Amino acid sequence: MPGSVPRIVMKFGGTSVGDLERIRAVAARVKQQKDAGCDVVVVVSAMAGETNKLVGYCNALSPLHDPKEYDSIVATGEQVTSGLLAIALQALGVKSRSRAGWQIPLVTDSAHGKAGIVSVDGTSLLADMADGIVPVVAGFQGIGPDERITTLGRGGSDTSAVAIAAAVKADRCDIYTDVDGIYTTDPRIVAKARKLDKITYEEMLELASVGAKVLQTRSVGLAMREGVRVQVLSSFVEGEALVEGKLPGSLVVDEDEIVEDKLVTGIAYSRDEAKVSVRRIPDRPGIAAAIFGPLSEAGVNVDMIVQSTGADGTTDMTFTTGKADLPRAISTLESVHDNVQYEELLTDDDVVKISVVGTGMRSHAGVASTMFRTLSERSINIQVISTSEIKVSVLVSADYAELAVRALHTAYGLDGV
Amino acid sequence: MPGSVPRIVMKFGGTSVGDLERIRAVAARVKQQKDAGCDVVVVVSAMAGETNKLVGYCNALSPLHDPKEYDSIVATGEQVTSGLLAIALQALGVKSRSRAGWQIPLVTDSAHGKAGIVSVDGTSLLADMADGIVPVVAGFQGIGPDERITTLGRGGSDTSAVAIAAAVKADRCDIYTDVDGIYTTDPRIVAKARKLDKITYEEMLELASVGAKVLQTRSVGLAMREGVRVQVLSSFVEGEALVEGKLPGSLVVDEDEIVEDKLVTGIAYSRDEAKVSVRRIPDRPGIAAAIFGPLSEAGVNVDMIVQSTGADGTTDMTFTTGKADLPRAISTLESVHDNVQYEELLTDDDVVKISVVGTGMRSHAGVASTMFRTLSERSINIQVISTSEIKVSVLVSADYAELAVRALHTAYGLDGV
Repeated sequence: MPGSVPRIVMKFGGTSVGDLERIRAVAARVKQQKDAGCDVVVVVSAMAGETNKLVGYCNALSPLHDPKEYDSIVATGEQVTSGLLAIALQALGVKSRSRAGWQIPLVTDSAHGKAGIVSVDGTSLLADMADGIVPVVAGFQGIGPDERITTLGRGGSDTSAVAIAAAVKADRCDIYTDVDGIYTTDPRIVAKARKLDKITYEEMLELASVGAKVLQTRSVGLAMREGVRVQVLSSFVEGEALVEGKLPGSLVVDEDEIVEDKLVTGIAYSRDEAKVSVRRIPDRPGIAAAIFGPLSEAGVNVDMIVQSTGADGTTDMTFTTGKADLPRAISTLESVHDNVQYEELLTDDDVVKISVVGTGMRSHAGVASTMFRTLSERSINIQVISTSEIKVSVLVSADYAELAVRALHTAYGLDGV
Repeated sequence: MPGSVPRIVMKFGGTSVGDLERIRAVAARVKQQKDAGCDVVVVVSAMAGETNKLVGYCNALSPLHDPKEYDSIVATGEQVTSGLLAIALQALGVKSRSRAGWQIPLVTDSAHGKAGIVSVDGTSLLADMADGIVPVVAGFQGIGPDERITTLGRGGSDTSAVAIAAAVKADRCDIYTDVDGIYTTDPRIVAKARKLDKITYEEMLELASVGAKVLQTRSVGLAMREGVRVQVLSSFVEGEALVEGKLPGSLVVDEDEIVEDKLVTGIAYSRDEAKVSVRRIPDRPGIAAAIFGPLSEAGVNVDMIVQSTGADGTTDMTFTTGKADLPRAISTLESVHDNVQYEELLTDDDVVKISVVGTGMRSHAGVASTMFRTLSERSINIQVISTSEIKVSVLVSADYAELAVRALHTAYGLDGV
């Protein structure tokens, strides 16, 4: 009964295939999974360091190089790894073959260097599996409308893997990486951080976007849209073939699959924040548009926004942006001064954004107030607040980052034993 | 008048593109040729050392690796160089784009690792040139019947270049290498060796096959069949744009183009020779087949063959083969002893083959006798002789290699001033 054979996509990142010894270890792990009766598609990144070397060549020849050539050059890293892993699998007696993006084909748009996936034809991969072959796909790459090689941008191999899992209707997409799962918060800050067995796509998106860089954000969004179950696990832990019910990593799934009833799933923080305050603006309609329109045109990514109107008929507008965008934000605001007529422009990049994330807060009140009370008890001053359906974020002074994360981790009952 | 624009294929080997500085220098040279009013297609090898690194990976993972994977892995070397050179050309203001073998397409058979070219579609390259674009082709590679990447074997970039020159009907195929042309003999042995302005395909074939490894033999044969004029020249000599009548290298052309009337064009030698003598075989029909059939089946490449029959009803059979084939030749001959019933098997790998080559000997007698007399005057004993239409080869003791080459170079009037 072919339908009963579990179909697994296994994706290995650059450190997991960093040298020939590790490639052999990956081959052994893939064989284990295949021997356990699964159909397997493997997706690989370039050997660690290769992509940086090739990018360095491009930059050295021309800082403003043609992204089409960049893609053709950089995509060779994954092509090499996919061939080497196929050889390593064959050496273990596993039938295998490599497939570059254009050999699937994984079709993208023409946005070279950061292409979006248009379609993945699963036919060739399904045919490989039907023949008992393990296809090893070069991640991170596709083919554009003009038959040229494209890349999906840094971290794009995760997205490749999820898109391929969707195309072959895989039961699971296992992302092998250098961490063994997704934690309630950064274990380097909170020793009692716990690994999560399961987390929803939405929670993972919120956690990824505020700095928990285990999975590329785009791959999580794609997994959510396509309903691909994604497991994050370590490639450096010896393990048995993975079967449902005994998965060692963290599973990113639909909310329906989450049994445990938790208010908050994790605490995330991001140091890559800068605060901008535009002060004492004569209050009139259209101020927000006059400020954020030009910022958007200048490519400044704005995150939290707070507006407060004083009794004197002036308004203060405060927002946050990434540290790298701050200079551009300042120059843009200076250029609109004649129009907006603010009195003062204040900036502060010594801030950190802390977020509590959990789908549970949809049905439970009091999550935000617990956060505010906990921080207040530690005398931590909240500068900006923003909330979404499953997240509450606050901006605080960077000095308090670790203290705030630890206090919140305890307050929401996340500490492990 | 488009027909009057010279169309040149420029091919650069691995040392010519060995690092970013050299790639920049190649770009400058290509620009010079383009600025002189030529349409240009560039063909590149991998950066020196890259191919060996990738081959080393394959061998380390599995000595008997899948040649399809080997091809996919190794072909990345040329793909990287073609992209980098396109970037370097663009940085000089020259419109350029890379093309992998499958993007031309250069179609081959399925003999992975040593594929033969089936067809080259010049349409895409001609369209590039019509748009003012310099296409930079990844040499050494093509695409097989099953849409997988193939390679043409070591030195295959020369063959790529010639095949592409034929496909776009190029006026010339310039092979940039680390020597500045083809010499009457090895300049390391004969200080008075002269660079040849022109040489025929046939002569080049004979010289290449006996050790003058400037051009891959297969590329010369292809150039001859397709009538592609090939120039060999140095990429390390600064030069002006090349125009007919002032070409600095050696031109390999059809016999019709050779004006100078020479008896002998060059003296070649090969140290990669071993002599095998099968002695005192009872003379009967079918001996040659009984010996050379099994050798051929064992993959032993046999070159010169001499048979001499004694008065006593026995025959001696002597032949030469490559040094690497000698052990296989010996074991094969031992295995057929019961059938052939020879008395003695003698081998000697301390020999050298010396050849005088020239299309002129077609119409002139006395070339061979000059050779024999010259060697005799130096007391050099000739062990085996073989002749072809434009070549006379002799096997002599390796000790006399340099002496013989120098004496012959002088005897045929090849010494420069």
